[in-house]
Amino acid sequence: MRRSELISIIRKKKSFLCIGLDTDLSRIPQHLLKADDPAFEFNKQIIDATHDLAIAYKPNLAFYECNGVKGWQSLTRTIQYLKSFEVFTIADAKRGDIGNTSTQYAKAFFNPDQSGLDFDAMTVAPYMGEDSVKPFLEFSGKWVVLLALTSNKGAEDFQFFSSGGKKLFEQVLIQSKNWGSEENMMFVVGATKAEMLTAVRKIVPDHFLLVPGVGAQGGSLQEVAKYGLTKDCGLLVNSSRNIIYASTETDFAEKARKEAEKLQKEMEALLSSVNF
Amino acid sequence: MRRSELISIIRKKKSFLCIGLDTDLSRIPQHLLKADDPAFEFNKQIIDATHDLAIAYKPNLAFYECNGVKGWQSLTRTIQYLKSFEVFTIADAKRGDIGNTSTQYAKAFFNPDQSGLDFDAMTVAPYMGEDSVKPFLEFSGKWVVLLALTSNKGAEDFQFFSSGGKKLFEQVLIQSKNWGSEENMMFVVGATKAEMLTAVRKIVPDHFLLVPGVGAQGGSLQEVAKYGLTKDCGLLVNSSRNIIYASTETDFAEKARKEAEKLQKEMEALLSSVNF
Repeated sequence: MRRSELISIIRKKKSFLCIGLDTDLSRIPQHLLKADDPAFEFNKQIIDATHDLAIAYKPNLAFYECNGVKGWQSLTRTIQYLKSFEVFTIADAKRGDIGNTSTQYAKAFFNPDQSGLDFDAMTVAPYMGEDSVKPFLEFSGKWVVLLALTSNKGAEDFQFFSSGGKKLFEQVLIQSKNWGSEENMMFVVGATKAEMLTAVRKIVPDHFLLVPGVGAQGGSLQEVAKYGLTKDCGLLVNSSRNIIYASTETDFAEKARKEAEKLQKEMEALLSSVNF
Repeated sequence: MRRSELISIIRKKKSFLCIGLDTDLSRIPQHLLKADDPAFEFNKQIIDATHDLAIAYKPNLAFYECNGVKGWQSLTRTIQYLKSFEVFTIADAKRGDIGNTSTQYAKAFFNPDQSGLDFDAMTVAPYMGEDSVKPFLEFSGKWVVLLALTSNKGAEDFQFFSSGGKKLFEQVLIQSKNWGSEENMMFVVGATKAEMLTAVRKIVPDHFLLVPGVGAQGGSLQEVAKYGLTKDCGLLVNSSRNIIYASTETDFAEKARKEAEKLQKEMEALLSSVNF
């Protein structure tokens, strides 16, 4: 998907909400376990109930891989189902390896003829440097969402390691932004570190940022918007557990919609406040 | 697998060779493509031909994921087949995410009842810090192989980022070695950076190191052994393409054995030189 198309979806839906599909068979409503493919059935109902409010969906690969071949089938069905809606899709996979291996990972998520998966974007870890990231950027219309500053406590272990006044996550932003462009790269910046968004925006003023950590992890949407919004919106704010597990009863999809709607309304007001 | 068992396998086979199963359907002998599961058939013949020479096998996840559900089936069959041999198994997956997600990744590779996969170890990326790594260490008898210094050119982009005289990869070693112990953690150190092994061994004198980059990537086994061998061996040296693609004809398994045997003989001499 092109950046202009993403922006036009944001404009149309008045939302920059990404819904994380961290679909855990031990947390979904128990009546779904009777379905042929419970994880897909859950995702389908969540998507049906929220696709006019969300501009992106982000399946978290771990929650599919833990179910082996069956999990990979659920993931494949989910991404194929998402293709019928006007949404941006992100494989939250945190991959990254030497060049020839990263090329294979890119095919896994970006080449449906070979793998069955056709995501618009995937998350990539920066530790192995340029030649581990560039293979993903060779796929036209596809995006790398590179980890910069993550939302977890462990982010402080190495991402703040600092040299010559620069922290590692800043160095990652500075070096990597030239590997691609605003048209094919985004960065992960955790909502729990919203105060760092000013520093981030100094380095990447126009790139889209994928912001996890609102909701269950404690980040604030208002803070994220205050420091992160740009003239093109420039944000995809993710919420996973707060939406998809809003209820564990048969009304789960309806309750998920209510949670998504709350965020969408808040986002609509925030977008309007910057005249987007 | 316990460390003592790993060491006893090394002693028995007089080898510290790990064979990387980077099984690429476009590179395996074409006659195998007629098989029901060509990737598994290839792996099976490679394993049959080399299991007395290798002490470990390392399927590279990217090469399975790129074939979607079918690839995941090939991987599952491969790890199940490997269980019949006295070998250490490593999922080269480079995973790592916030705690609750890393727990799911750990189940994917360490919990066969749920996922069908029962690896002894998996590679993990350190960027997200302690809480992204610790969930993998909660599985008894299982190992984390944490990226420290990788074999690719891009390793120089961030792994040498330095603060107070310490490079990032050294900081990763210093902090992370206390998250587990020599009984459940190893580190990746690329053979192409063998001269750095002295610095690595100062920080982790007793941990096993997984060393990729010998062969196709240009690293030297002699150099690696010189700086990396310990009284318990302490090394798993990986070779992938040089062994598994030694021939692309019907004699591929035989030729793979010859390449593996060359390395094993060299390793036997090196182990003997340190009185292992």
